[in-house]
Amino acid sequence: MTARFPSFGMNRRVLLSTLATLPVLSGTLLAASAQAETTPPGGVLPSWNDGPAKQSILDFVRDTTDQASPKFVRPEDRIATFDQDGTLWVEHPMYSQMMYCLDRVPVLAAEKPALKHVEPFKTVLSGNRDAMAKLTTPDLEKIIVATLTGMTTDEFDAEVKKWLATAKDPRWKRPYTELTYQPMLEVMSYLRATGYKTFIVTGFGQDFVRVYSQRIYDIPPEQVIGSALAVKYAYAKDGRPILIKEPKLMLNDNNAGKPEGIHLEIGRRPRAAFGNSTGDRQMLEYTKAGDGTRLSMIVLHDDADREYAYGPAQGLPDTKVGTFTQALYDEAKEDGWFVISVKNDWKRVFAFE
Amino acid sequence: MTARFPSFGMNRRVLLSTLATLPVLSGTLLAASAQAETTPPGGVLPSWNDGPAKQSILDFVRDTTDQASPKFVRPEDRIATFDQDGTLWVEHPMYSQMMYCLDRVPVLAAEKPALKHVEPFKTVLSGNRDAMAKLTTPDLEKIIVATLTGMTTDEFDAEVKKWLATAKDPRWKRPYTELTYQPMLEVMSYLRATGYKTFIVTGFGQDFVRVYSQRIYDIPPEQVIGSALAVKYAYAKDGRPILIKEPKLMLNDNNAGKPEGIHLEIGRRPRAAFGNSTGDRQMLEYTKAGDGTRLSMIVLHDDADREYAYGPAQGLPDTKVGTFTQALYDEAKEDGWFVISVKNDWKRVFAFE
Repeated sequence: MTARFPSFGMNRRVLLSTLATLPVLSGTLLAASAQAETTPPGGVLPSWNDGPAKQSILDFVRDTTDQASPKFVRPEDRIATFDQDGTLWVEHPMYSQMMYCLDRVPVLAAEKPALKHVEPFKTVLSGNRDAMAKLTTPDLEKIIVATLTGMTTDEFDAEVKKWLATAKDPRWKRPYTELTYQPMLEVMSYLRATGYKTFIVTGFGQDFVRVYSQRIYDIPPEQVIGSALAVKYAYAKDGRPILIKEPKLMLNDNNAGKPEGIHLEIGRRPRAAFGNSTGDRQMLEYTKAGDGTRLSMIVLHDDADREYAYGPAQGLPDTKVGTFTQALYDEAKEDGWFVISVKNDWKRVFAFE
Repeated sequence: MTARFPSFGMNRRVLLSTLATLPVLSGTLLAASAQAETTPPGGVLPSWNDGPAKQSILDFVRDTTDQASPKFVRPEDRIATFDQDGTLWVEHPMYSQMMYCLDRVPVLAAEKPALKHVEPFKTVLSGNRDAMAKLTTPDLEKIIVATLTGMTTDEFDAEVKKWLATAKDPRWKRPYTELTYQPMLEVMSYLRATGYKTFIVTGFGQDFVRVYSQRIYDIPPEQVIGSALAVKYAYAKDGRPILIKEPKLMLNDNNAGKPEGIHLEIGRRPRAAFGNSTGDRQMLEYTKAGDGTRLSMIVLHDDADREYAYGPAQGLPDTKVGTFTQALYDEAKEDGWFVISVKNDWKRVFAFE
């Protein structure tokens, strides 16, 4: 489907075989060409149904990457940001990083037995799901601080890697890293193929997502922005410099923190942004308010059969995880964001289907 | 000088003409090929004299980018960081951003006349250079906060752009943006051509450097890390989302703050790092302490004729701007960093020479 990639005026096969001999190439171009080469008969975005959501992405790319377009955007200004939980992968029944923190509690208690008698650790160790469901936000914060701080950044990375290799989602019985949304992977890949730099802007910890972002999203660690705990430079006993994760929140990358974090780590306004909850509202507003053509899109989880259904927008249940209010839905319509309906817009949800 | 780029096993001219038809290419590859194509008879790094400093860069690139090398580094792990002031451009007689802040004081006083009677603004407005030279660090901090906060990020960008277009260095009577070191531009370009991603890690404000980084260093804003004031998400009177620069320091990107800032905004340890003062010490240590082959280099300004000479390492005068102590020099030798002597290693200092 060569024609879907605007302005490629050459024999791609020749280019690809030429490029294959070049070892110093960054992944970008090869990924782009490979994508074009292997585009199935359904065209780009094969896991999307035809409709306004898919069309809005195609229109946006065409308008901003065709040099003849009055809305053309220079390649160096092509920035696209994606929320993670609920936008790129499943966030129910609980955010994966929270699962990680809860799973770390027994390990921590083995190292520091005194914790076994202290709340909220006692409740977590009891394994009583009803009691755990009642943990308050301050309780969860205590667990987050205890399990995400006090170690070196290298130790943390190793722990997360180990956990990801074994932990499984309770419904699909698969590693969390397989629960990415295939249509969104296609959007990121398509945007990169058309010169966009893709970033993750997550409300959860950037250190956590950076461990696997290259492997599952093809996004390098430096293009992951998220909530950030401070680190402290220090020397190990052998004199080696290390960074220790500290219990001090530097960036709360939720709500207004999203555009603030984007400014801190990217330094300019995105051209396109994708989210799924009230925590993404300011990022979507900020993106849409820029000059020229901008694209803001928001995923509505309305498919309980294939994934989950939650709102409370459009009468869907309010499950407290990934809240999408009716007010946000109304703002989307008013401000010209596109709503992505999982039920109607996604032909396929997961790669393993 | 094709041979200087390891493993390019093909006809580059054919590749270049092929690539020229591809509009969606990221700049990386074109820059790499263009550089290779136009490499002068002197080889890569033409503004460098042959010697251990130049050789250490060539060796590092060969070892880490040749797939046959046991020290090979995967392209996605190729990260190189550069201090700015004194490493990429001139920092004497005063850091450019401090010049910017001082130049903003009269503008500020015109808006808020009460400032004319308040120190340290009164001294700056007097134009008395001797009195200004005696301003203390708290005085300078007051000036920094007054001139860098309270406006939107867009307003700040516009002000910096305007200033850069007219402000001139007192010695060379040229815009500051022309006072970049040609040999260091060549190192950055060479590293990018061999698959490295180049980052600036500056002690001064990242918002300031991001205004011109693409234009003068070919480095996009998101690859500039520096000291950062918080921004606050808000709405303008017309309802438009804006970001306001706040008087709250989020990241002091000096000394231990450099590896901490690298962790915050890059998320992994650099393979190569370049600095010139005690403020870069921890970044250079942290980089060198990583596994495999790492390169830490430090510029010694020992050429008063062509630029400036300051230390106090090696008996050079201690000018307080860009301090390079003898202890740091000794650590460099002991820890295997390479010292770059402006006098001996640089054939040419500026592009305009």
